[in-house]
Amino acid sequence: MPIITLTTDLGNTDHYVSAVKANILRQLESVNIIDISHNIPTFNVLHAAFVIKNVYKDFPPGSIHIIGVNAESNEKTPHIAVYADEHFFIGTDNGLFSLLLDIKPDKIVHITTSMDSDNENFPINDVFVKAACHIARGGTLELIGSPAADFMNKSSKLVPLHERNSIRGSIVHIDHYGNAITNINQSIFNEVAKGRKYSIHLGNREHYSLSSIKKKYNEVPLGDALAMFISTGNLTISLNMGSASSLMGLEINDTVRIEFYD
Amino acid sequence: MPIITLTTDLGNTDHYVSAVKANILRQLESVNIIDISHNIPTFNVLHAAFVIKNVYKDFPPGSIHIIGVNAESNEKTPHIAVYADEHFFIGTDNGLFSLLLDIKPDKIVHITTSMDSDNENFPINDVFVKAACHIARGGTLELIGSPAADFMNKSSKLVPLHERNSIRGSIVHIDHYGNAITNINQSIFNEVAKGRKYSIHLGNREHYSLSSIKKKYNEVPLGDALAMFISTGNLTISLNMGSASSLMGLEINDTVRIEFYD
Amino acid sequence: MPIITLTTDLGNTDHYVSAVKANILRQLESVNIIDISHNIPTFNVLHAAFVIKNVYKDFPPGSIHIIGVNAESNEKTPHIAVYADEHFFIGTDNGLFSLLLDIKPDKIVHITTSMDSDNENFPINDVFVKAACHIARGGTLELIGSPAADFMNKSSKLVPLHERNSIRGSIVHIDHYGNAITNINQSIFNEVAKGRKYSIHLGNREHYSLSSIKKKYNEVPLGDALAMFISTGNLTISLNMGSASSLMGLEINDTVRIEFYD
Repeated sequence: MPIITLTTDLGNTDHYVSAVKANILRQLESVNIIDISHNIPTFNVLHAAFVIKNVYKDFPPGSIHIIGVNAESNEKTPHIAVYADEHFFIGTDNGLFSLLLDIKPDKIVHITTSMDSDNENFPINDVFVKAACHIARGGTLELIGSPAADFMNKSSKLVPLHERNSIRGSIVHIDHYGNAITNINQSIFNEVAKGRKYSIHLGNREHYSLSSIKKKYNEVPLGDALAMFISTGNLTISLNMGSASSLMGLEINDTVRIEFYD
Repeated sequence: MPIITLTTDLGNTDHYVSAVKANILRQLESVNIIDISHNIPTFNVLHAAFVIKNVYKDFPPGSIHIIGVNAESNEKTPHIAVYADEHFFIGTDNGLFSLLLDIKPDKIVHITTSMDSDNENFPINDVFVKAACHIARGGTLELIGSPAADFMNKSSKLVPLHERNSIRGSIVHIDHYGNAITNINQSIFNEVAKGRKYSIHLGNREHYSLSSIKKKYNEVPLGDALAMFISTGNLTISLNMGSASSLMGLEINDTVRIEFYD
Repeated sequence: MPIITLTTDLGNTDHYVSAVKANILRQLESVNIIDISHNIPTFNVLHAAFVIKNVYKDFPPGSIHIIGVNAESNEKTPHIAVYADEHFFIGTDNGLFSLLLDIKPDKIVHITTSMDSDNENFPINDVFVKAACHIARGGTLELIGSPAADFMNKSSKLVPLHERNSIRGSIVHIDHYGNAITNINQSIFNEVAKGRKYSIHLGNREHYSLSSIKKKYNEVPLGDALAMFISTGNLTISLNMGSASSLMGLEINDTVRIEFYD
C-alpha cells in the first residue's frame, strides 16, 4: 500500500486537510495517508524543513511526502517533485528543499501539469495531490514535469563552524517541550572532541554552561538543565521536566559554543 | 470500504474522539474513518456547517458524515439522518442542516433507535455511531427512523443581496490563516459583473477597498491585501502572508459590498 | 488487523508522533494505529491515566495501548508491559498504571529488550514500539521482559469517602468543554443514596449547590449549572453550553460533597 505523508501549515480547524485526504481517496483505491503535522507555524519553511528532515527516513523507501507550506508558485518558485534518498518529495522550490536535503537529489522536475482549479491559491489540494497520486500509481517524474539540474532557491543553512578546539553552532528548532535543538550533530562533535573535556556555552550572552552530555533527561535532578543528543543526532539543550526555551530564554538562532580542553 | 467522516467540537485532549472511533471499529470490520475536524469552536454550528459544506463533495458518493456539534436532542431538536446529494449525514436538527445543504434532501428521518446509555449527554458516541454503522452495512434510513418532510429548524442563512450594480454580502468564516471568507460566490459575482469594473468595500466602516480579484496570494506584495475566489468558490479577503482578520480587523458578519461601474 | 493506540504528550507540531507511526509501519505490514491523544499536558500522568482509563475498554479485546507520558526509565521506574482486562498496555511504571487499572493485572513484565538507539531520551519510539509490534505479531510478554508481581510505584488515587449520609469526593479532570469530572461514580452514589433526596456542594468554599442529577445538558436553561453522570459513570459538574471550570472557578482536586436526607 503506498504511503503518502502530509506536512502542512493548514491547521486543524478548517476543512482544508480533509479536502486533501478526500481528493487522495478519490484517486487511489488503497493508500495509507499519514499526517506528519498540520501545525507547522504558518509560512515557516524552516520549521517544516526541520520536521520532515528528521522523520522521512523512518518511513519505508518509496514513501511520498507532500510538503505544503508557503506553497504558491511563480516563475521564481516553481512546484517541484524530487526523488532523493529513496523517497519522493512534492512541494515548492522556495528554499525549503535546500534545508531539507543534505544530498544531491537523484531527480528534480518542475511540475508542468496544469491546475484543475481556476484559482491557484490551494496548490496542495490540486497539483500536489495529483502528483502524489501519479507517483503512487507507479508513474514517473518525467511524465509530470521537466527535469531541472538543481533547486532554484537555496536557503543559507546555518552550519556549525568548527576549529581544532571549538564548535560554534546555533539553535535551529524549539520543540513542543521547549527543548532547544541545535545544528551540532553527534558526528561533528565526536570528530572534534576526540575524547577531550569540554564546556558548552549557551545563549548569546552565554549565561549558561554545561560540561557533560547526558543520554536521558533523568540523569539530572528535576528542573536542571542538560545537553543530550536526541534521536536525530542533534545536540539538544533541555530541562528535566521543564521548558529550556522559556525558563532559560533560549531562542532560535541563539549561538551554542563548545570549547574543548586538552 | 465505507468512509465515515467526523466533524465535532470534542477537541483533541480527552478520550472522547477515540471512544467514538473505538465504537465504530467494534461494529465494523473494515471502515475508513476520516477526521474532518474536532476543533470546531464549542457549540458553533455555523462554523461546523461551513466546514462540512465545503468538503463533503470531495468524498466519494455514499460517504457517511457524522456531525457532532451541539448534538443533544429534545422534542424540538431531534437527531436526524439525511440522504442528500449522494451523501449521508447524521446529526441534530438544530439549524445546522439548513446552513449545510442548499438543496432539498432526498430523505430525512428522525432517528428512533433508543440510546444504549442511560445518560444522554454523549449522543455522538451512541445514537450517531449506531446510525452510521447501520448505514455503512447497507441498512436503510427507514429502519432507524421515521420520515420527516423537512428540517424542523432553519437558521436564516445570510445570503448576499444583489442589484444591477451592486452585491452586498458578509463574512461568514475566519480560517486558520485569518482569511475572511465571504458568502459571495463566483457565480453570482460573474452574473452581476458582466465584465464591468468594480470596487470591493470591506468592513462595516468600509475602511478598505479593493479593485481587483486575484488568483493567488503572491500576485500582490508581501503583507498587502487582496481578494480571491478560493477553491470553494467563496470570495475571500486575505493578506499575502498575513492575517486579514487580525490586521484589518475583519470579523464574522462584517459587510462586504461590491459596486460595479459601467 | 491488530490495533495499536497512542496516548502521549508529544504534541502535534514536531515530527515525534509520525516517527512513532513510521517505525510501527516499518515493522508491521498491516496495523490500525489510533491516536487517543497527543495533547496530554506535558508530564501529566494523572491526565493520561484518566484519558486511557476511560476509553481502553471501548477498543476490541487484544488491543495494544502505548502510553508515552513521562516515559523515561531508571531502576526505580522501569519500562513495563502489562496484560489486564484483556488489553495490553506498554508504558513506564511511574505511578500511572496504578491510576489506570483498578484490577490486578494478569501479567506484568519489566521490559528487558535493549534500546536500539544509543540515546535513551525517546523510549516511546524505541522500546515501546518494539514491544507493541512484538505483541501485535502474537509474541508473549515473557519473551520481552521479566515477570513482576506488582507495580513498583503506586500513586495514591483520591477515592471518594462515604458514610451513611454523605459522599466526599473530588474533581479529577477538567475536560475540553470545561466540565469538571469527579471521582464519584454512579454505583457508589446509588449505593449510598438509596433513593433519598440530596444536595451536592461544590468547590472548596462550597459556593454552589445542586439538588438533582440530570441526564443531559439541555434539561437546564442555557448557562445554568447541572450535575450529570457521563458515559464513564463519573459524576460531572457542567454548564449547559458553558465552561463550568472557568465560570464556576472549579479546579482539579476541589472537593465535591453530597449530603443525603431521610
